[in-house]
Amino acid sequence: MKVSLIGSGNVATHLAIACVDNNIELINVYSKSFDHAKQLADTCHAIAVNSISELSPNVDFIIVSINDDALTELSEQLAGLNIPIVHTAGSTAMSVFSSSASYGVLYPLQTFSKSKSVNSKDVPFLLEANTDILLNSLKLFCTQLGANYTLANSEQRLHLHIAAVFACNFSNHMYSIAEQLMAQHQLPFDLLKPLILETAHKIEKLSPIAAQTGPAKRHDVLTMQKHLEALTQNPELFDLYKSISEGIEKNQNS
Amino acid sequence: MKVSLIGSGNVATHLAIACVDNNIELINVYSKSFDHAKQLADTCHAIAVNSISELSPNVDFIIVSINDDALTELSEQLAGLNIPIVHTAGSTAMSVFSSSASYGVLYPLQTFSKSKSVNSKDVPFLLEANTDILLNSLKLFCTQLGANYTLANSEQRLHLHIAAVFACNFSNHMYSIAEQLMAQHQLPFDLLKPLILETAHKIEKLSPIAAQTGPAKRHDVLTMQKHLEALTQNPELFDLYKSISEGIEKNQNS
Repeated sequence: MKVSLIGSGNVATHLAIACVDNNIELINVYSKSFDHAKQLADTCHAIAVNSISELSPNVDFIIVSINDDALTELSEQLAGLNIPIVHTAGSTAMSVFSSSASYGVLYPLQTFSKSKSVNSKDVPFLLEANTDILLNSLKLFCTQLGANYTLANSEQRLHLHIAAVFACNFSNHMYSIAEQLMAQHQLPFDLLKPLILETAHKIEKLSPIAAQTGPAKRHDVLTMQKHLEALTQNPELFDLYKSISEGIEKNQNS
Repeated sequence: MKVSLIGSGNVATHLAIACVDNNIELINVYSKSFDHAKQLADTCHAIAVNSISELSPNVDFIIVSINDDALTELSEQLAGLNIPIVHTAGSTAMSVFSSSASYGVLYPLQTFSKSKSVNSKDVPFLLEANTDILLNSLKLFCTQLGANYTLANSEQRLHLHIAAVFACNFSNHMYSIAEQLMAQHQLPFDLLKPLILETAHKIEKLSPIAAQTGPAKRHDVLTMQKHLEALTQNPELFDLYKSISEGIEKNQNS
């Protein structure tokens, strides 16, 4: 299996490494910044190219992993290549590439930071394609990575992406707020790590609604009042505490 | 070491089991509901009692693990016992028991659900006591459980509790919202589990602010607009999405 890559961000980097680790040949890397493309290509036995027109046609498909806004801009240029292309965006419809003959989506449902490696077995992929040939290539790609895949149309993927933003980006922001509160009171963030890990691992066994604990779940008005009083100097956290607690109380009553 | 327990909720149950598992003798259990006290006592080789006055004086201390509101009510009754008493509440000052001679706090910084066991090694305890003798008993208790402990005064513990609410209760609510969104669009919640676990495990290596990913982190306005449009039918989630995204954007700029 042979693929090329457009992009050199977090997702592109993780996919490139996953290819190398699982005997999928990475042919070319193109990025707005040639230096970034070259750096990534060099670590993955691939060749960096200076323009899209230099991308080799001898691949199963090209993976486009760039900012959502840039996808639309690039779509015309990509159509001229006559190579199957897929993007990795959660909230962009497959049809962004409809000027190409063969196009699809390879959406990795995972959070990637350059400084933290992720086993591709822990990356469920959401797949969509306008031809069976390309869809089969995408399935084969996932299988070769040892990853699970699920078929989803563009609308489902949008809603799944919103769910992922809550489950991942927003819960991480809650960790971030906790870290700030700890620092403000000379308490080490490390103290909270077992709690954060246990909270996440609980959902392997329990539905989140059954796993819920805390003052809002218990309708412990006294404790919530104390917390809100302590947060009065920070109106944003005050409002957030209030609205999330109300959401929990409502959830438990419904 | 010998302790008794007042309460039969999630925290009381986990502490009772941790005692039995680690050779700490549980003498009595008292609870508003005698049936609950008896059920817990029976599984822990302890004796359930019908009233507070029946609690054996022959213990190192009594652990009071009941609703925060009920602590104040109970404090006078407990003073009459002349036995060291500690509570397990994050946001209640140690002084709630100041009518007793010897009193303190044994706050387990963890989330407990009855249907999910927790290894006591994964429970950091926050300790406070009005006498060195009781403080040493509490340290010994934690050591016997194989748990870490940290000394914290009542004010620090309040702020730590607020941080824990964000890190645990609120992040779990984010999982809960994600589960609802998935169900609304016929997508299995299981798809999100690797993402949730990876998000939590990232903070073992990265600070949450460095681990942040997603549309708000990238200032990806187009994607956030699509998400908000999709949430217009649910004004609460719409507002929550907006305010948390703004918090993330602000955080990344500061």
